[in-house]
Amino acid sequence: MKLYKEMNELELGREYAALRKEYAACQARGLKLDMSRGKPGYDQLELSMPMLDMVASDRDMKTLDGSDVRNYGQLEGLPETRRLFADLLEVAPDQILVGGNSSLNMMFDAINLAESLGIMGSTPWARLEKVRFLCPVPGYDRHFSICELFGIEMIPIPMDAEGPDMDLVRRYVEKDSSVKGIWCVPKYSNPTGLTYSDRVVRAFAALKPAAPDFRIFWDNAYCVHDLTDTPDPLLNLFEECARLGSEDLVYMFASTSKISFSGAGIAVMAASPANMADLKAKRTIQTIGPNKINQLMHARFFHDKEAVLRHMARHRELLAPKFEAVLSALDREIAPLGIASYTRPRGGYFISFDAMEGCARRIGELCRDAGVVLTSVGATFPYGHDPSDQNIRLAPTFPPVKELEEAMEVFCLSVKLAAIEKLSGQLESAS
Amino acid sequence: MKLYKEMNELELGREYAALRKEYAACQARGLKLDMSRGKPGYDQLELSMPMLDMVASDRDMKTLDGSDVRNYGQLEGLPETRRLFADLLEVAPDQILVGGNSSLNMMFDAINLAESLGIMGSTPWARLEKVRFLCPVPGYDRHFSICELFGIEMIPIPMDAEGPDMDLVRRYVEKDSSVKGIWCVPKYSNPTGLTYSDRVVRAFAALKPAAPDFRIFWDNAYCVHDLTDTPDPLLNLFEECARLGSEDLVYMFASTSKISFSGAGIAVMAASPANMADLKAKRTIQTIGPNKINQLMHARFFHDKEAVLRHMARHRELLAPKFEAVLSALDREIAPLGIASYTRPRGGYFISFDAMEGCARRIGELCRDAGVVLTSVGATFPYGHDPSDQNIRLAPTFPPVKELEEAMEVFCLSVKLAAIEKLSGQLESAS
Repeated sequence: MKLYKEMNELELGREYAALRKEYAACQARGLKLDMSRGKPGYDQLELSMPMLDMVASDRDMKTLDGSDVRNYGQLEGLPETRRLFADLLEVAPDQILVGGNSSLNMMFDAINLAESLGIMGSTPWARLEKVRFLCPVPGYDRHFSICELFGIEMIPIPMDAEGPDMDLVRRYVEKDSSVKGIWCVPKYSNPTGLTYSDRVVRAFAALKPAAPDFRIFWDNAYCVHDLTDTPDPLLNLFEECARLGSEDLVYMFASTSKISFSGAGIAVMAASPANMADLKAKRTIQTIGPNKINQLMHARFFHDKEAVLRHMARHRELLAPKFEAVLSALDREIAPLGIASYTRPRGGYFISFDAMEGCARRIGELCRDAGVVLTSVGATFPYGHDPSDQNIRLAPTFPPVKELEEAMEVFCLSVKLAAIEKLSGQLESAS
Repeated sequence: MKLYKEMNELELGREYAALRKEYAACQARGLKLDMSRGKPGYDQLELSMPMLDMVASDRDMKTLDGSDVRNYGQLEGLPETRRLFADLLEVAPDQILVGGNSSLNMMFDAINLAESLGIMGSTPWARLEKVRFLCPVPGYDRHFSICELFGIEMIPIPMDAEGPDMDLVRRYVEKDSSVKGIWCVPKYSNPTGLTYSDRVVRAFAALKPAAPDFRIFWDNAYCVHDLTDTPDPLLNLFEECARLGSEDLVYMFASTSKISFSGAGIAVMAASPANMADLKAKRTIQTIGPNKINQLMHARFFHDKEAVLRHMARHRELLAPKFEAVLSALDREIAPLGIASYTRPRGGYFISFDAMEGCARRIGELCRDAGVVLTSVGATFPYGHDPSDQNIRLAPTFPPVKELEEAMEVFCLSVKLAAIEKLSGQLESAS
């Protein structure tokens, strides 16, 4: 097959007409497919159903330390839940603060508290002229939305195969005291699926921020979400920091939203002793504490890291064919044409697709008009603005494989059509 | 029996010596009793155990509108949960925003958001020179702690049998734009147990605040927590506001912490359409939404208001004897001596006790030294400072009746001892 950019106007025109016919046929099918969000599939949710039987009217409701989960108390979380997450995140149990069911909410809350009260006694951010966050791109739209809501200025940081450009990160963080944070999804990053290299993790630990209240928002959302036999290794940021005495830099987050139930999981935050003291002083006033029956249910079902990993292997069995369906469609339909690049994640929930420059929005439109919903084009960049209009986040987890194959047919057609429109435009304007 | 204030020095001395002996005997028993917090008793928690069977591995996990509670979605709450709380609070279901398990957290959050982002576009409170809240006293210590954390200046407002002094409230709210809120527990108030009169509720609805972002924090924590056959009626604040077009004044809160489980209940907020739009615009960014399996469990177990009321009647059976134990001890031991006054709540979780001026702290010490923990003396006032040092919140719900009787023996002795110490001091300084 010829690369599109090697085709002349006539060849492109012929190809375009043929693709248009196929596209019209797709439209005629009246599809309604959704590849927009990182939602677990129905079959994945079924995996955790036995967890619901871990609490019942005939079971005792005591924690390991003998307290009754049904009453008030245990503000930081149950001992068994803290231990489970400590195990998963490779930190000490007393570094774990258990939240409700949304790690996004814990991140929002950390920023909201920094805005209104500061961090460890710093000036509340809401009183500062300017607060800035570094945003590795492409990244997670919901991180960016939090910054936007609070009027926090976002600075995009390019990512390569190792992670964010750490020279640029260092320059901002160490010179500019208005830079208060950076968003990171260090393992199977949203949306690229790539994992930060050892060099990058060490560079994070070695940061010497100008702002004492600068924090690395380390969203370890996909810490055990492997799709292969050879999971990506990720250095433990806290361990690297411990060597340098920089543990206070880190707010780490995780949740079971994609382990147990997205609608009723458990979120946690991990932090240094000094950060924990700061957070706990606030939490004492902030809440009576997170849902403890849900914690008990999780702790009883998941015991320890090994049990979680066995459970995740079952998720993998369901997810790997979906990623395979997307990637094989792209390999077959798109790769030979030289009109796009995309990632091959070994875990996580997304594939990041880079179309030809200026084509992403058009691809989104074409997909939509044929009944396929993608993540809003641009969403992977701060303010929803992808300057080169080329990145698209593909979320293969929710639809069944058959639907995914249909959706990918539409997607690949749309990518090709947009590419030809773009190339024809270039030829025209060149002529 | 003679009133203490009618006794001469000799009589008081004789009485004091006799009481000291009894007190020493109590101390010798090595008691360890807790009347400090509004915690449900073990037997109350048992009432809701069948709720845990409402979700299980063999049950379907769909809401009434057919969506899967295990996955993402339904940010404002399940339709059935919103309907249940709408029923309880007598508002429309779309006025209900479901939260996690802590209504205290929803209140904190409302203030935290006001501090960082303002309300409906107002200036964020964190950027203002001064923010003030009105605090009817005696009141709930955890409300006051929130204000203290955010540096919100608290203005105590005296309460009488009808509720807060509304002339004073009106004067502050309508003249001072730094007054941004007032804390209210309108039914079976914490700690007095008294319910606001119709006149007071109507006066709230008729407020014309100087600050557009003034809100009434209407903590309806005990809305169905009756202890008698003749529950206190409370006017529906939203209905009164609707007549005057002032619905935007109200943030209403409630929870099932003392209906189902304190450690795993459901909290809600009710608000006007304009407030809901403001809150929802933030919530979209703030969280993936509250735990939905817990919502489903509650909605299935509690169906509707009637079922909740039937359930609350069972709570009452367990609680009424505890209130009776406390009140009969007070009636027998304290009332005849003319050294204190106390409330006789028809619902809620507390009895408010007013000792002689300047005696509360001493009573707290005496109780502590004989193994009985009371709510920190002073806690019912802003900054923990009861200017006349006389209010004590009694929390009879947690200990079994037998323990409560023992605790009340110590409490009554302590009240008498403190009173005699005070009266003797007065006699001495008069002589």
